[in-house]
Amino acid sequence: MRQVLHGHIIHAPELGKLEIIENGYMHLEDGRIAGLGQELLPGWADGERVDYGDRLIMQSFCDMHLHAPQYPMLGMGMDLPLLEWLNTYTFKTEARFKDVDYAREVYRRLAQELVSNGTTRVCAFSSLHLESTRVLMEEFEKAGICGYVGKVNMDRNGSPELEETTEDSIRDTIAWLDGCDPSAHIQPILTPRFTPSCTDELMAELGRLAKARGLRVQSHLSENTSEIAWVRELHPDCPQYWESYEKYGLFGSHTVMAHCVHSDAREREAIRRNNVVVAHCPDSNINLISGVAPIRRMLDEGIWVTLGSDIAGGAILPMMGVIASAIRSSKVRRISENWGVDFLTVAEGYYLGTTSGAKYFGSGNGFACGDGLHAIVIDDRHYVDTGRLSVRDRFERAIYRADANDIKAVYSEGRKIKG
Amino acid sequence: MRQVLHGHIIHAPELGKLEIIENGYMHLEDGRIAGLGQELLPGWADGERVDYGDRLIMQSFCDMHLHAPQYPMLGMGMDLPLLEWLNTYTFKTEARFKDVDYAREVYRRLAQELVSNGTTRVCAFSSLHLESTRVLMEEFEKAGICGYVGKVNMDRNGSPELEETTEDSIRDTIAWLDGCDPSAHIQPILTPRFTPSCTDELMAELGRLAKARGLRVQSHLSENTSEIAWVRELHPDCPQYWESYEKYGLFGSHTVMAHCVHSDAREREAIRRNNVVVAHCPDSNINLISGVAPIRRMLDEGIWVTLGSDIAGGAILPMMGVIASAIRSSKVRRISENWGVDFLTVAEGYYLGTTSGAKYFGSGNGFACGDGLHAIVIDDRHYVDTGRLSVRDRFERAIYRADANDIKAVYSEGRKIKG
Repeated sequence: MRQVLHGHIIHAPELGKLEIIENGYMHLEDGRIAGLGQELLPGWADGERVDYGDRLIMQSFCDMHLHAPQYPMLGMGMDLPLLEWLNTYTFKTEARFKDVDYAREVYRRLAQELVSNGTTRVCAFSSLHLESTRVLMEEFEKAGICGYVGKVNMDRNGSPELEETTEDSIRDTIAWLDGCDPSAHIQPILTPRFTPSCTDELMAELGRLAKARGLRVQSHLSENTSEIAWVRELHPDCPQYWESYEKYGLFGSHTVMAHCVHSDAREREAIRRNNVVVAHCPDSNINLISGVAPIRRMLDEGIWVTLGSDIAGGAILPMMGVIASAIRSSKVRRISENWGVDFLTVAEGYYLGTTSGAKYFGSGNGFACGDGLHAIVIDDRHYVDTGRLSVRDRFERAIYRADANDIKAVYSEGRKIKG
Repeated sequence: MRQVLHGHIIHAPELGKLEIIENGYMHLEDGRIAGLGQELLPGWADGERVDYGDRLIMQSFCDMHLHAPQYPMLGMGMDLPLLEWLNTYTFKTEARFKDVDYAREVYRRLAQELVSNGTTRVCAFSSLHLESTRVLMEEFEKAGICGYVGKVNMDRNGSPELEETTEDSIRDTIAWLDGCDPSAHIQPILTPRFTPSCTDELMAELGRLAKARGLRVQSHLSENTSEIAWVRELHPDCPQYWESYEKYGLFGSHTVMAHCVHSDAREREAIRRNNVVVAHCPDSNINLISGVAPIRRMLDEGIWVTLGSDIAGGAILPMMGVIASAIRSSKVRRISENWGVDFLTVAEGYYLGTTSGAKYFGSGNGFACGDGLHAIVIDDRHYVDTGRLSVRDRFERAIYRADANDIKAVYSEGRKIKG
């Protein structure tokens, strides 16, 4: 089926490069991009036409790190330091996902809010509960979201209500993996919560599973200094945090590591060498006073950087807000380095929140031919002065100001899932 | 007329102290607070009752620094350094307010957006244009906003399209002041843009006017390091920036100085001694990479700190967002001072955005008896899990997550202006 979308097309084919096609045409063949440009392609005049007029057609977003069962506590507990926050809010909240009906209701609403804000691909943590993890995958699938969800593994240092035995963790993980549908848009990803949460035995088993079944892995790395010190105590044989994953085969290509706030040159080199993906979570890192990650340095070194909302350490679910937060964080870093390092431009922030994440799911650069369409349509005509502004200015304003109400349509893998 | 509002009442009578009255009663006599508490006061059973049920009744917000004519460029130009930003966006945008019809339209919409987000009192910069300044005051008045508006004075270092002669500046300022209605909710405030924008002659005349007419003053102070160096060149007789205001009598009690990012101990002592009000603009200071103001230190020193959106250097108009931004900035400051200084709690941030500003307009502590009511009513029942949460948690979530849609009613000086 041929379809043509008409509007102002904006995408980020590479870091720092924004391509704008005013009054452009997006050609879709069965939901896949067949070409975009200023003119209608020959032979496409008969295709179904969707005229978005003066609206903005932009890439949708990839949220590369979020904790789905922390959604009910979004925006709360922000006065607490990390460990108290975990014990007072996080573990208690996650423990409630033992109740599958509760999970169904919460995850349905989370999926709605993600879609409504233009997040079409995710790398998400579930809780340790097998059934609720299935529910999360189902609800994301139903809502039209693509990506990965992981049942969390944690067999130590949890709380009385939130911990599993090593045996249960392994058994449930295998049962969960065996039950996943290989043709679904949501696929499983191995998810040791973080090194302090997993015994050596569990880590070793997850490493074996990753290798035997060719599975991807996600976890946390070097978020704050006391966590790093803790890992050093737990793994005295590992000179650095990342090596506590690597020694079990959990630090390979396409492993997503959230945070990496305090990763030094040696750790960053290991990240780059292993093609590990950094999920930068700027809002969370500030809320929990973890630090400000050296993102410009990582980019200069060739590290694969993406963005995550990290709800509920992060209090901002819409990825446009996370992009703005990443830009602001980079400016904070510029200030703290005495104006000696560049900040992220709006175009760069947008790339990190879209294309850089999209590559994790196999997509090309920006709106690339052959890819299923992942896009949002923004209607900003109700703002002051829209008629006088360049499309570039309107794009920037959207990143800083637009909300779910302004997102009139969302496409995920070629399917229209909002609007 | 007697009126009683019923709901969960939340206010900040002092810095760091949050008072919550669940299912409380707010008693109003002709729009003025006559008492609040857990029980209906004797004799009030016959008053008009507004039952807000399970909703939150909170103080509304004071935006102590914003540039009204920069509203059309809100959220744009954020990749540019301060001086280029001023020349490419700001001066061009402000120059358009020569057109009174344009001003009418833009200011009407600005007033709506402020009210819609619960900002009921402001200290605002207009442009240098006399007529448009009147229009701004009228539109704020019509919308129910209270506070101060200043015609900007700038007779040097502007741009070809945005500058006035010293003579015009003085003449227009006097004409503007003479035309103001002393009984209006919006009153005039003298507004030299900042030291580099005003000749000594103009500054001296504004100082005379301030004294002769008992007028308040607002301006900018120590926003960034090159600005400070520039002022030093312009006023070699002044050891510090603030003294370029003080020598003309423009640094007295209730003078509002925006930013004060780089105010050192000596300048801060002058601020405190003179009862000058700091309008902290956290989002603007990061967007323009000015720095992060030492707010905790100022509070410890007894300085009067309030909050400003500083649109459009700031890209966040809703004051709940500005409060969250102030909290985040204080956490950034904590990080940059090696975790050696406390961050702002949510209760502290809320105080700065409400009571601290309200005192500038003569109000008491929190919802104080005798004050005209300035309040918002938040309906957060559509969020996940609201029924299970404490009112304290719901309050915090509102600061981080609520938007104009969640603000169901706004009261300003006892009048209901939204809802």
